[in-house]
Amino acid sequence: MTTSKQLRLGGFFSVPGNHLAGWRHPDAVPTYDMDFQGYAHITQVAEAAKFDTIFFQDTVGVAGSRALARGERTRAKLSRTVKLEPTATLAALAMVTSHIGLVATATTTYNEPYNIARRFASIDHISGGRAGWNLVTSQIEDESENFGFDEHLAHADRYERAAEFYEVVTGLWDSWEDGGLLRDKKTGVYMDRDKVHFLDHVGKHFKVKGPLNITRSPQGWPVVAQAGSSEAGRDLAARTADVVFTAQTKIDEAKAFYADIKSRAARYGRGPEDIKIMPGLTPVLGRTMEEARENYEYLQSLMPDDVALQSLSHISGGLDLSKFPLDGPLPELPPSNAAKARQALVVRTARENNMTLRQIARHTAAGTGHRVMVGTAEYMADEMEKWLKEEAADGFNVVCNHYPKPFEDFCRQVVPELQRRGIFRTEYQGTTLRDHLGLRVPENRYTRQAREALAREAS
Amino acid sequence: MTTSKQLRLGGFFSVPGNHLAGWRHPDAVPTYDMDFQGYAHITQVAEAAKFDTIFFQDTVGVAGSRALARGERTRAKLSRTVKLEPTATLAALAMVTSHIGLVATATTTYNEPYNIARRFASIDHISGGRAGWNLVTSQIEDESENFGFDEHLAHADRYERAAEFYEVVTGLWDSWEDGGLLRDKKTGVYMDRDKVHFLDHVGKHFKVKGPLNITRSPQGWPVVAQAGSSEAGRDLAARTADVVFTAQTKIDEAKAFYADIKSRAARYGRGPEDIKIMPGLTPVLGRTMEEARENYEYLQSLMPDDVALQSLSHISGGLDLSKFPLDGPLPELPPSNAAKARQALVVRTARENNMTLRQIARHTAAGTGHRVMVGTAEYMADEMEKWLKEEAADGFNVVCNHYPKPFEDFCRQVVPELQRRGIFRTEYQGTTLRDHLGLRVPENRYTRQAREALAREAS
Repeated sequence: MTTSKQLRLGGFFSVPGNHLAGWRHPDAVPTYDMDFQGYAHITQVAEAAKFDTIFFQDTVGVAGSRALARGERTRAKLSRTVKLEPTATLAALAMVTSHIGLVATATTTYNEPYNIARRFASIDHISGGRAGWNLVTSQIEDESENFGFDEHLAHADRYERAAEFYEVVTGLWDSWEDGGLLRDKKTGVYMDRDKVHFLDHVGKHFKVKGPLNITRSPQGWPVVAQAGSSEAGRDLAARTADVVFTAQTKIDEAKAFYADIKSRAARYGRGPEDIKIMPGLTPVLGRTMEEARENYEYLQSLMPDDVALQSLSHISGGLDLSKFPLDGPLPELPPSNAAKARQALVVRTARENNMTLRQIARHTAAGTGHRVMVGTAEYMADEMEKWLKEEAADGFNVVCNHYPKPFEDFCRQVVPELQRRGIFRTEYQGTTLRDHLGLRVPENRYTRQAREALAREAS
Repeated sequence: MTTSKQLRLGGFFSVPGNHLAGWRHPDAVPTYDMDFQGYAHITQVAEAAKFDTIFFQDTVGVAGSRALARGERTRAKLSRTVKLEPTATLAALAMVTSHIGLVATATTTYNEPYNIARRFASIDHISGGRAGWNLVTSQIEDESENFGFDEHLAHADRYERAAEFYEVVTGLWDSWEDGGLLRDKKTGVYMDRDKVHFLDHVGKHFKVKGPLNITRSPQGWPVVAQAGSSEAGRDLAARTADVVFTAQTKIDEAKAFYADIKSRAARYGRGPEDIKIMPGLTPVLGRTMEEARENYEYLQSLMPDDVALQSLSHISGGLDLSKFPLDGPLPELPPSNAAKARQALVVRTARENNMTLRQIARHTAAGTGHRVMVGTAEYMADEMEKWLKEEAADGFNVVCNHYPKPFEDFCRQVVPELQRRGIFRTEYQGTTLRDHLGLRVPENRYTRQAREALAREAS
């Protein structure tokens, strides 16, 4: 039995590839975006490599649709436009896998908490305790027009709604204590009235009575992931998240982020083990460092300049970057309501590396802010081990430029290197996602209250 | 090849049983309500019997929760309180079946059309064209308090919202024409801009720009089912539904309903084959008629009077029926906002059959308005054949008092009788739910417009 600190691995399946031109690679299978068999294959590859979880992000709209409607025909080059709805996908994937965690994004901005609480609890039941919910606030302006809004909600309002949404969802997950269903054929009593609870939530954004019409799920609560990097996002994550997905490109910054989240968590009475920090990682493998760099250059060559520029438009604060020289510097950007933290990261990366507009655009398009790791399997394992041991990360969320080959290669070449170092499992030890991540099952709040009341009486 | 008019069969899985005391039967497995393996078993039994579809109704709340909160402890005897969320369930069931249709209810009252359009289209993709959406307006007052409302929306408002919801959902389903994704690696163009469409819907209840972030699904549109029986409900169904689920207990009334829906449909330019009418049917089987009646009496004996009375409270228009003598007549009921048509049916049934309050209460609890068919397999097949041939029904939605045995018995005993008569398939002929039901794939509206424009130019 190994006692080394263990790495967590997530497979972030960004269809048809996280690199905006990755789908043009000869190995790429872009039809995966609408083909459930592709989703199943990637998930099964991840499970064979003993990943903790697979993860699907989500957007409730076609990214770039506003611009497409305005007639910007270069938008037709964007690949990440269609996909299967992630929660239906998770439920189906539960049937073709046995151990791996199943995490999907669902926005708090355009959903009702009762519906989200039910669906993730159901997936947790169906999968035998493998569900996870990545709680986000919607940040793509193209989404708002599909839900009756002309403009996107302000950043602060979205986070306030998200925090309240979380309270309602987790409260509903506790509706039924263990043993709440008696199903006593003899007496005819189906439920134990004292173990069914009304939430009676009345807040600024929601008014929800409860109870949820589903019993508590195998994990107590499905795992909750978050990705916020702004002040409001970090604080919500530290208080509530089991897993934090983040974009970190440099070890020093990653260590500072890691320390910040764990110390914020401590302020809320949570231990460092209660929250797992998993930066994104985009592998570009080669048998040699030279070959890996060539592979990366080849991939970058597939990306048209107009597509690269568009990858910045989301954080440009409304500035039309196509009016600036591609070989000049990144111009001063107006403040962005949509993704403050991401804008700051891009600006800093460009400044620090003296990048031209074309270079920062291609760089951003290549990894959407995530670390692009170019090298051999051994180099990658070294780097991951270093980040783990120096407390820059508890694990990584592996997101590929295209699918399936780079993901298969990572699983076949890098994972065995990690296992050889004793920092990654060779077999699953448990059956639930909480088991894999080493997270406790939260106690039902009403059971705890009853237990505490009893203890007070006894003393 | 048979040329007889063919019967359609749906399996309506009402967990843990449609009879309010059915779960107390020695054969009943009430734990099925939270056990996905139960859902899978019932669906696989239905598929082995070549059913057109399985069907899950839904409630976004615990029925009876208001009364439970008020302290009415008899509510603890209600069994239909918890279940798996139906759309997640459908996606999972798609993986453990190969042919049977997969239909679930989703309310238009507490959802957003963009989310519903995506999820059912995704299930249609995942299942290879087997998804169906039962469009309802929420009629249980316990649901409203889970979505920020103190009171339920008025009947007329709910139907107006439902009609607009349908327009948005089907419009979004047409967002992508066939061939809308080019994925041309050489040119770098992912989508054909001219085959992606913005809905730009602006109505009283919704404002939705589109496009949907998912391509058109194998059935074009998932099958749409409806159950409304009121004037507004019938009209919406005749205009839009592929399948109508209905509660009909007498052949003459069923024929009138059938003729009414088909003639209303004709007014909207639809043929009689475009809309399938499937009343509910609750079988109580016996090897002899006498044994079947005994089985029914035994089942009724399991039902406490207070539970039977509660089954009427939903349609009592607020009148407390427990104050009336159980062996006296059903009292005059005030108008009901929640379920007009159902109230009218119950009142008529009681009057016509001279039933006491206890009798009509037990009768209602036994079938929630659906025809309870008590008899031998041969009797049932005779009745179903008669209803089919006399145009009282295009098929039936089989809903059982408890599970799994009565459903297994129906499939093993009644289905072979129907097959022997040549009115029900012995093998699936197609692969999609539209194939099974004999329904056309609707043409994409934009493809049709382009085709029509081209024809005008040519003439």
